[in-house]
Amino acid sequence: MSDNAPPDQNQDHESLTIPLLSHERSLNSTSQVAIVGANVCPIESFDYEIAENDFFKQDWRTRAKIQIFQYIFMKWLLCFLIGAIVSLVGFCNNLAVENIAGIKFVVTSNMMLARRYGMAFLVFSLSNLVLTLFAAIITAFISPAAAGSGIPEVKAYLNGVDAPGIFSLRTLIVKIVGSISAVSSSLLVGKAGPMVHTGACIASLLGQGGSRRYGLTWKWLCFFKNDRDRRDLVTCGSAAGIAAAFRAPVGGVLFALEEMASWWRSALLWRAFFTTAVVAIILRALIDICLSGKCGLFGKGGLIMFDAYSANVSYHLADVPPVLVLGVIGGILGSLYNSLLDKVLRVYNLINEKSVVYKIFLACSISIFTSCLLFGLPWLASCQPCPLDASEACPTIGRSGNYKKFQCPPGYYNDLASLIFNTNDDAIRNLFSKNTDSEFQKSTMIIFFVTCFFLSIVSYGIVAPAGLFVPVIVTGASYGRFIGMLLGSHTNLNQGLYAVLGAASFLGGSMRMTVSLCVIILELTNNLLLLPLIMMVLLISKTVADAFNGNIYDLIMKAKGFPYLETHAEPYMRQLTVGDVVSGPLQLFHGIEKVGNIVHILKTTRHHGFPVVDEPPHSESPILYGLILRAHLIALLKKRVFLCTPVQIGVDAFRHFSAEDFAKKGLGNVDKIEDIELSDEEKEMFLDLHPFTNASPYTVVETMSLAKALVLFRQVGLRHLLVIPKISNRAPVVGILTRHDFMPEHILAEGNQTGESHCTLSSCIFHLPYELQGGKVRMIQPLQILVR
Amino acid sequence: MSDNAPPDQNQDHESLTIPLLSHERSLNSTSQVAIVGANVCPIESFDYEIAENDFFKQDWRTRAKIQIFQYIFMKWLLCFLIGAIVSLVGFCNNLAVENIAGIKFVVTSNMMLARRYGMAFLVFSLSNLVLTLFAAIITAFISPAAAGSGIPEVKAYLNGVDAPGIFSLRTLIVKIVGSISAVSSSLLVGKAGPMVHTGACIASLLGQGGSRRYGLTWKWLCFFKNDRDRRDLVTCGSAAGIAAAFRAPVGGVLFALEEMASWWRSALLWRAFFTTAVVAIILRALIDICLSGKCGLFGKGGLIMFDAYSANVSYHLADVPPVLVLGVIGGILGSLYNSLLDKVLRVYNLINEKSVVYKIFLACSISIFTSCLLFGLPWLASCQPCPLDASEACPTIGRSGNYKKFQCPPGYYNDLASLIFNTNDDAIRNLFSKNTDSEFQKSTMIIFFVTCFFLSIVSYGIVAPAGLFVPVIVTGASYGRFIGMLLGSHTNLNQGLYAVLGAASFLGGSMRMTVSLCVIILELTNNLLLLPLIMMVLLISKTVADAFNGNIYDLIMKAKGFPYLETHAEPYMRQLTVGDVVSGPLQLFHGIEKVGNIVHILKTTRHHGFPVVDEPPHSESPILYGLILRAHLIALLKKRVFLCTPVQIGVDAFRHFSAEDFAKKGLGNVDKIEDIELSDEEKEMFLDLHPFTNASPYTVVETMSLAKALVLFRQVGLRHLLVIPKISNRAPVVGILTRHDFMPEHILAEGNQTGESHCTLSSCIFHLPYELQGGKVRMIQPLQILVR
Repeated sequence: MSDNAPPDQNQDHESLTIPLLSHERSLNSTSQVAIVGANVCPIESFDYEIAENDFFKQDWRTRAKIQIFQYIFMKWLLCFLIGAIVSLVGFCNNLAVENIAGIKFVVTSNMMLARRYGMAFLVFSLSNLVLTLFAAIITAFISPAAAGSGIPEVKAYLNGVDAPGIFSLRTLIVKIVGSISAVSSSLLVGKAGPMVHTGACIASLLGQGGSRRYGLTWKWLCFFKNDRDRRDLVTCGSAAGIAAAFRAPVGGVLFALEEMASWWRSALLWRAFFTTAVVAIILRALIDICLSGKCGLFGKGGLIMFDAYSANVSYHLADVPPVLVLGVIGGILGSLYNSLLDKVLRVYNLINEKSVVYKIFLACSISIFTSCLLFGLPWLASCQPCPLDASEACPTIGRSGNYKKFQCPPGYYNDLASLIFNTNDDAIRNLFSKNTDSEFQKSTMIIFFVTCFFLSIVSYGIVAPAGLFVPVIVTGASYGRFIGMLLGSHTNLNQGLYAVLGAASFLGGSMRMTVSLCVIILELTNNLLLLPLIMMVLLISKTVADAFNGNIYDLIMKAKGFPYLETHAEPYMRQLTVGDVVSGPLQLFHGIEKVGNIVHILKTTRHHGFPVVDEPPHSESPILYGLILRAHLIALLKKRVFLCTPVQIGVDAFRHFSAEDFAKKGLGNVDKIEDIELSDEEKEMFLDLHPFTNASPYTVVETMSLAKALVLFRQVGLRHLLVIPKISNRAPVVGILTRHDFMPEHILAEGNQTGESHCTLSSCIFHLPYELQGGKVRMIQPLQILVR
Repeated sequence: MSDNAPPDQNQDHESLTIPLLSHERSLNSTSQVAIVGANVCPIESFDYEIAENDFFKQDWRTRAKIQIFQYIFMKWLLCFLIGAIVSLVGFCNNLAVENIAGIKFVVTSNMMLARRYGMAFLVFSLSNLVLTLFAAIITAFISPAAAGSGIPEVKAYLNGVDAPGIFSLRTLIVKIVGSISAVSSSLLVGKAGPMVHTGACIASLLGQGGSRRYGLTWKWLCFFKNDRDRRDLVTCGSAAGIAAAFRAPVGGVLFALEEMASWWRSALLWRAFFTTAVVAIILRALIDICLSGKCGLFGKGGLIMFDAYSANVSYHLADVPPVLVLGVIGGILGSLYNSLLDKVLRVYNLINEKSVVYKIFLACSISIFTSCLLFGLPWLASCQPCPLDASEACPTIGRSGNYKKFQCPPGYYNDLASLIFNTNDDAIRNLFSKNTDSEFQKSTMIIFFVTCFFLSIVSYGIVAPAGLFVPVIVTGASYGRFIGMLLGSHTNLNQGLYAVLGAASFLGGSMRMTVSLCVIILELTNNLLLLPLIMMVLLISKTVADAFNGNIYDLIMKAKGFPYLETHAEPYMRQLTVGDVVSGPLQLFHGIEKVGNIVHILKTTRHHGFPVVDEPPHSESPILYGLILRAHLIALLKKRVFLCTPVQIGVDAFRHFSAEDFAKKGLGNVDKIEDIELSDEEKEMFLDLHPFTNASPYTVVETMSLAKALVLFRQVGLRHLLVIPKISNRAPVVGILTRHDFMPEHILAEGNQTGESHCTLSSCIFHLPYELQGGKVRMIQPLQILVR
C-alpha cells in the first residue's frame, strides 16, 4: 500500500484485511500485550484452572456427600432440560417456517393459477421484505450478537473466549424469532447454525440459572459456579442444536466433538449423547403427532429428514471415477466459496459499521434482490410436459412436490420453479429424489447452481440470523445432480444419489469436517450403503480445499478477531522461548498488601491475574507464593475485612467469607473495581492475600520453547501461565503468559518492537526470517542458524 | 483372612484379588515407588514429551522443508497401508472361518442326514478339538501375548503403557491364525477383539519399519522415531480393526475415539477416518468379487453385515416401556457378566500359571465341553413343523439358513439347532431376522441364552485369541428375542428388532460405550430409524451397569496389572499434595558428570529419567538444569566421546552424534547399560550432559494437589514430572512423579508406610480415612478436617 493514498481509502483497504471486531473498536489496536479482554476489547478468557487456594480447599473439605450427589444429579437434569427445550424450539421453528413460508407459496401459487402474475410478485416480494425487515430490525436494535450463524461465536466460547452478549436472553429470543422470519422470507439462509447457537444459548442460560440481567433466575438452578461446568453444558447444547436441526442425534454429538469443542472427555461424550437422545426421542414423539395432520402445513412435506433412500443401492468400480471428480470439484468450489464469503463479509462490514440504517437497508436490498431472482428466473425455463408415470400429481397441487406449475399451461410443469420457487428444504428433497432422472433440464441445474452459490454468499452477512448448512447443501446438491445428468446412462447411480454426493463434497470443501458430516448426511438420507462413497467424497474434497484456505467457521472467527487457540504449535513457535514473548511491566502483589496499592493497581491495569510474592521480612528470600485473580481481589475488597497491621491471619479469614462470594456466577455483570468506594483510612489498612491466592499455579521455565508451553496452556486450558526464571537468584517470576501471547499477531509485533534485545543464550534465531501473511506467520527466507 | 490358615490356601485366596500380571512376577511386589518398568516388572511408560535439549533443537533447525513433507506424506501412506492390510486380513479371516467352519457343518449335517449320529458327533468334536488345540499350542508356545481379546493391551498401550511383546510379529501371526482356528472350532469366542489387536499390531510394525527382531525391516519405512507418532498409528490401526470386523467404518473411528484412545486431536480423527474409509472401500470391492460365488462357502451367508432391516419400522409410545425394561435387564446382566468373567479369569490364572500343559489341557476341556453342549442340547428341543410360508427352504439344505434339520424327520426343523449348531454369525443373523416370529420356541430361547451366557464366560480365558463382541451380541440378542416373544402381540415391533435391542442392551451393560456402540449397531443392521430406541437402551443399560462395576476391558486391564492412568482425579487426590506422594532416594546428575558415576547409577537404579543439577562452581547456587533420559545417557556412553577435564563443550558435542543415535526406534530391543563395557580409565573421564538434557521439563511445585498435578500429567501425556520446592533455598528439586505415583495402590502403600511424617502445613488429612477396596480408594469414616 503506498503512502500517497488518501487516508480514507487507506483505511478502507486496511479494513479488508484486519479483523472485523477489532476494527469496530479503535481501542483494540493500542496494545496486543495485554491479557485478553483487558485494556483492549471486551473479550475475556475463561478460568478453567482449579484455583487451589486455602479457602477453596477448606470449602471442598467441608462439602458433604449429599452435595456431590446433588451436583451430579443437577448435571444430568440440566442435560435433560437442554435436550427437551432445544427439541421443542427446533420443532416450533420448523413448524413456524413451514406454515409461514407455506402460506406465502400457497397464496402466490393460487394467484399464479388465476394468471395474476403482477399481483403474485407483489405479494411474494412484499411478504419477503416484511419478514426480512422484521428479522433485521430485531437483530439490529435488540441483539446484534444474534446476527449470522453463531457457530463461530460458540466455537470461540468453547475455546475459552468470552465474547460479550452472545448468550444473553435477548440474543436467544432474537435468534429464534429472527431465524424463523429470515428463513420464511425465502432468503437463502439456513436454520442449522442458528439452532446450534440457540442450543448453546439455552444451555448457558440454564447453567447460570436464568437471565440475571432481567432477574429471571431460579435459585435451584444456580448451581454451577465455574466456567468448566458451563463449558460442558454449552457443548451439550450445541450438540442438541444440530440434533434438532437435522434430526441427527449421533451427527450432533460428533459435530460438537469434531468442530465445536476444544476440550473433550469421555464423560462429556456420554452426557452429550444423552442430550441428543432426549432430542431425538422428543422430536420423534412430536412428529408422530404431526403425522396425523394437526400441524397445518407442517407434517406433509415438512419432515426434517430427507428420507429419500430406503431402497438398496448398488454401485461398482466404474462409479468411482465420477465420484472422485465430484470430490475434487467440491474441494475447489468449497474453498472458493469460503474465500468469497470472507471477502463479502469484509465489504459488508464497511457498510454495516456506518449506521444501523445502512445495515437494515442492506438486508432489505438483499431481500428484494432475492425475490426478483426467485420470481424472475423461472420464466427463463421452458415448460416441460408432465411425465406419464409420475409418482405424484403433476403439476403439483398445493405447496410441496416435484412438479411446480408456475406459469405453465395445464399438463406442464416448470422444473426451475420446482427448485427455486420453493422452500430450501423442499428444493433439497426434490434434488435428492430418486426415479426422477428426466425431471430436470441441464440448463435449469446450471441456473439454479449459480443462483444458489452467489445468493448464499451475499445473504449470509446481513444483519439477521443466518445459517450456512442448508445453503451449502442446496448448492452442492445442484452441481452434484448436474454431474449425474451429464453422465446419464454411463453410471449405475441415479441422479438423486449424485445430488447427495454433491452436497457431501461441497460440505466437505466448505466446512472441512469428516466423521460428523458423514454421519449427518447418513442420518439425513437414511442410507448406510452409501457410506464408502460419502467417505471418499469427503476425504477428497477436504484434502483439496485444505490446500487453499481454512474452514469457513475459522475464517469468520478470524475475521471477527476472536483469539482462538489452536491445538498444534506452528513451526516458528519451536524456535522461540517463552522468555522471548513474555513482556510488559509485571504487576506484583505482596503476600500482605496495602489496600490502597491493590485498588491502585486494579484501577490502573486491566490484568485478570497477578503473581503474589513473599519478600523479606516475611520470608528469607523473595519467593513466588502464587497467583491471585482480579475477581477474587474485588470480592475481598467488597467485604472490607481489612487488617490494621501487616500480619498473617490464616484460617481466621475464612469465617468472613462463604464460597458464594468467590463463585463466578455467569456471563457478564461482574463486579467492577470502579464500583467499590473505600475511605482513605481503609486504604491505609492491609489485606492478607495468602488464603485466597492460588498457591500452586502452573509454571514454566523461561527457556521452554513456546511450542511446548502452548501444549501445556492449551491441553490443560489455562488463562494465566506463570513464567519462572531459570536461575534462582533473580526475581522469582519473570512474567505471565496469556492467550494473546500465543497469537501470531502478538508474537510478531513483539519481535519487531523489541528487536534483538530479547535474545537469550539458547534462542537467537528470531525476527529475521518471519512475517505475517493473512494471519499466519510465514518464513521469508531460509532459516539460518544463529547460535551464539 | 485369618493368620491360622495354611499358607497355600492363603496364597490362593490372595491371587483372587491381586492383579494377575504382578502375581506372576514376584518382583513386582517389592517396590511401587519405582518408575514404571524400572526395578519391578517389565512394563514401561512411553515418552510423549518433547525432549527439548540443545541437540534436538539443533537437529530440528537443520531439518529441510522436504523432510517435513516427507514426514506428512509417510503418515498418510502408512495410514493407507494399515487400512489396506487390515481389510485384507479381515477379509481372509472371514473367508477362512466361513470355509473351515462351513465344511465342518456341511460334513456333520450330511452324516446326520444319513442318521449316523455317533459318527457325526465324533467328527464334530474331534475337528473342534484339533482346531482348539492348534490355536492353544501356537498361542502358548509362540506368543502368549496373543491370548484373549487384546483390546485391554491396546488400550493400555494407547494410555502410555508398554507391555512386553504385545506388538511383535509373532504375536501378529499367532493372533490371526489362532483367531481363525479358535472361531472355526465352534468355541463361543469372537473375532472383533482379535481384529482390533491385529490392526494395532500391523500399525505398530509398520510404524517401526517392520520386525526388528527378525531383521525384517524396510529402510524407507523406518521413519517414525518417537512414541507419539507410533501411538497415532496404533490408534488408526485399532479403528481399522473394528471397521474390518464389523464393516463399520464410522463405528471403528468412534470406537477408537471413545474406548481406546487416551489422547485425541482432530487431525488424528481425520487420519483415522481416512484409514477406515480405505478399509470400507477395499472390503466393499472384495465382497463384490465374492458375491459372484468365487469364495467357496463365503459370500452366500458369510457377509459380515447383518443387513436385516431395510424395511420401514414403525413404533409408538406403547413400545417404550418394554424397551426400558430391556435396558434395565441388559444393565444388570451386563454387570453380572463382567464380574463373573473377572472371577473366572482369576481362577483360570491359578491353573494357567502352573505350567503350559495345564493351559492347553484347560483349552481342550473347554472345547470338548462346548462340543458336547452344542451337539447335545438340540436333542432336548422338540421338532417343529416347517411353516408353509417360509421365505427359504425348510429344513435348510446346505450350511446356513433359519431352519436346521438336525435329527428331525423331513418337513420338520430343530429350532435350537438353528441357533446353537451353527456359526455365531449365522446364529445372530437368525435371531435378528424379521418375519420369523413363530420360528423359535420360548424354551429354546432360554436354553440358548443360558448356554451362551455361561459358555462365553468360560471360553474367554483360555490360551487362544478370543474376542468378546460376538458372544455378547449373541447372548444379548437371545434374551432380547425372548422378551419380544413374551410380549407377543402386545407390541408393534417384531422379534428381530427385540433381538437387536437386546444385543444393544447387553453390549451397553458390558462394554459401557455409547456413541460408538450405537453407530456400530446401526452399521451392522443398516437401519437408522431404530436410532432413538437404540440410544435409549444404551443409556439405560450403561447407567444401570455403572452402578455395579466397571467396563469389561477396564476390569481385565486391572486384573492384568496395567497402570492405566484415568482422566479424572479421585476425590482423595484433592486432599493430597504431590509432596505427600513423591519419595524414594532421588538420584541426581551434575551438569558435568564423571562417567563412572553415570555407569554406577544406571546400573544400581532402574529409573528412566534423572534430574540434572548445576552446582557451584559451575553456577552461583544449585540450580535445576533439566531432565535427562536413561536412553540418551546410554547413547552417550555408547559413543565414548568423553572429556578429560570437567568443562562445558557446548555445540562441539553435536558433531559426534546424529539424530539417529537418540531416536527411539521401536518396541523392545533397547540398548542396556549392562552391554556397555568401559575401561577404568574411561570411567575417570567426564561427560558434559548439558547439550543432551531436556532443559525445559514440566515442573510442579510441591504444594500442588495431586489432583491438579494429575491434570497436567495426564493431559500433556508425561512420563516424568519434576517436583520443585516451594522455598528457593532448598535443593532445587524435590523428586520425580511418574505414572505409578498416581496409582491408588502406591498412594496408600506410601501413606501407611510413612505415617504422618509426610504432613505439610497445607495438607494433613491423610491416611486416616481411606483404605483400598478392590483397587479403589474408599473412605472408611467421614472425613475430618485436621488443619493445623
